[in-house]
Amino acid sequence: MNDRTVCVYGVGSSHFGKQPDTSPSELAWTAVAEALGDAGVDSVDAVYVGTVFGAPGVAQRALHALGIVEVPILTLENACASGTTAYHEAFTAVGLGRYERVLVLGVEKMTAAFDGAIHPEDTDAEGRSGLALPALYAMSAARYVHEHGLTPEQLALVSVKNHRHALGNPRAQYRGDHTVEEVLASRLIADPLTLLQCCPIADGAAAAVLGPDRGEPRDIRIRSSVLRSGALWDETSPHVWGFDLVAATARDAFDQSGVGVSDADLFEVHDAFTIGEIVTTEALGLAEPGGGGRLVESGHTTIGGPQPVNPSGGLLSRGHPLGCTGVAQVAEVVWQLRGEADARQVGNARIGVVETMGGGVAGIDGNACVVSVLERPHAGPGAR
Amino acid sequence: MNDRTVCVYGVGSSHFGKQPDTSPSELAWTAVAEALGDAGVDSVDAVYVGTVFGAPGVAQRALHALGIVEVPILTLENACASGTTAYHEAFTAVGLGRYERVLVLGVEKMTAAFDGAIHPEDTDAEGRSGLALPALYAMSAARYVHEHGLTPEQLALVSVKNHRHALGNPRAQYRGDHTVEEVLASRLIADPLTLLQCCPIADGAAAAVLGPDRGEPRDIRIRSSVLRSGALWDETSPHVWGFDLVAATARDAFDQSGVGVSDADLFEVHDAFTIGEIVTTEALGLAEPGGGGRLVESGHTTIGGPQPVNPSGGLLSRGHPLGCTGVAQVAEVVWQLRGEADARQVGNARIGVVETMGGGVAGIDGNACVVSVLERPHAGPGAR
Repeated sequence: MNDRTVCVYGVGSSHFGKQPDTSPSELAWTAVAEALGDAGVDSVDAVYVGTVFGAPGVAQRALHALGIVEVPILTLENACASGTTAYHEAFTAVGLGRYERVLVLGVEKMTAAFDGAIHPEDTDAEGRSGLALPALYAMSAARYVHEHGLTPEQLALVSVKNHRHALGNPRAQYRGDHTVEEVLASRLIADPLTLLQCCPIADGAAAAVLGPDRGEPRDIRIRSSVLRSGALWDETSPHVWGFDLVAATARDAFDQSGVGVSDADLFEVHDAFTIGEIVTTEALGLAEPGGGGRLVESGHTTIGGPQPVNPSGGLLSRGHPLGCTGVAQVAEVVWQLRGEADARQVGNARIGVVETMGGGVAGIDGNACVVSVLERPHAGPGAR
Repeated sequence: MNDRTVCVYGVGSSHFGKQPDTSPSELAWTAVAEALGDAGVDSVDAVYVGTVFGAPGVAQRALHALGIVEVPILTLENACASGTTAYHEAFTAVGLGRYERVLVLGVEKMTAAFDGAIHPEDTDAEGRSGLALPALYAMSAARYVHEHGLTPEQLALVSVKNHRHALGNPRAQYRGDHTVEEVLASRLIADPLTLLQCCPIADGAAAAVLGPDRGEPRDIRIRSSVLRSGALWDETSPHVWGFDLVAATARDAFDQSGVGVSDADLFEVHDAFTIGEIVTTEALGLAEPGGGGRLVESGHTTIGGPQPVNPSGGLLSRGHPLGCTGVAQVAEVVWQLRGEADARQVGNARIGVVETMGGGVAGIDGNACVVSVLERPHAGPGAR
């Protein structure tokens, strides 16, 4: 639908982790300065921001101090997909010729909002039942195990893989070389999910600069980006919660991109909990329904395998500052496609996919899902 | 910049006021159902939502229960201008051909978030000094009085006028026939602002349906909509805080609309506090700097005068549910331009202007401002 090709010119991020003494502005400054420098751009026409728990004006506070003033600043909330929602709106704005240089910023300081996990809303049925997010994902996992016979070891392997990937990511919150046994022996949070199968509370910011194709070899082309919200979830469906939304969004994104899932060289997906990655790889079409456990077991999605998933460490290990996450995923894909991912580099990466799934309480099959297909358009240093 | 003319097809709103027993979804359902019915539209391609303090997913919770599913739902925060920011994004999306039918929803349940006034952020200099919003506006008023010699009576007249306007608005939160003496004798909140000069905490929702021009006589054409964020405020400026941002945004909006401020028949502006309307009428060009007090005194901005300001009662009397307000302003202008405003109808209204100013703490001259010029394109029942 866009009138012109859109590229990511540059990306940046803060460190990820619990950083209670670092303000949201400081997190944002680090990410934005890196992204602008990486893009070789010193001014922008508009800013799209993702945050969930940021105070009103959190972006303006940070941006005005950087001299980013007078341009439209738009702050979007779409639960865990807030950052990718901001990216999607920026992509569309550039594609339709509305702006020439757009900054995307994801910023979240979760340690300022919560002392433990995210509290459920007590106006939702889930909240009134005390069902926090780990419990919801645990129910999803239990249902999945019932339907497909996933083993605890297969589930734990997602955590093992992503934590090992994060060993190569100096920005990641947790970088641990864990065994399946260690993952299963970690503290039980919500059966069957143990501590190492749940993403941590994190603070962080990530940024990207988007614009029309300018012929720079380092720029990464966005082949497609699709945003959808979910339907009311049919609890009689054999698909667990979220599957249908991710599958529909991915189908549209691949259709619009002109490439298929088998063409993709790497994926950054929403592994807020281990079961999330299992279900998402199936919804994306990397495995048949019920095949997600065998997929991770096969090494297919490990760095060195044919189609690595979450080379950054994912939400489980890089961390999950909600509104930041989608932009951090985009940054990782850009680094990978350029061949700038150092110890976690995926070999000969030409096409990368970002998927973020946000929310989904109150009986909804996801508040929002964004899937985007990115491509290294020129032979560059990433070609190994 | 848009490729095609955009119209408001229909509008709706809940009642405004403290409604602690009404959920955000219930508020939204009332507004959305009215707007869809008014527009004669039964499905939409996308939804832009304004809210400041709404919980993550507040819009999805409401919309999915109405069967509005699978389409993009984008929730925007821009302080008091959140609703108009959502409207602006919808306007642009339709104008650029991205969508054919867009729902705009503003929803805010402030009684769920606050038991009194909005708390300042303690990470801001203002917050650390205990300067809540009434105090900030009071300092602005004190500076204005020093610069221009505004009298307490002139300031109070804004409240008298807007409360009297609200007598004709059955949806308004407060409908009181107050004298200047009563306004000045009401409880002092922050010198010189008394209780009746401060907008109340409110719950409410408003909605609008936008699409391309379809030739319907009842549709209201949007001649322009402009969104800007502010600059760092220069405290040595003779202009009080916010003036420069509103003036710059209004200048662009009038330029793009092809009409001038003298062509406008009515205005819905951001009178969160009486001083706000004084400053805003000057920034819009209705009066010279320093002339805002004499303007209201002259009756120029009263219903029956040449250019009524806030015929709905404004934020002071209709109420100010933050993320809802901008959409409520649009709804009022639409009702006025159609001649459907009953007891508060402005005679022969052909052109109306909406202005909302959001935020502006941390030394910033406004987080965002939106100004939009709307027009009744056909002779219809509003032509009196």
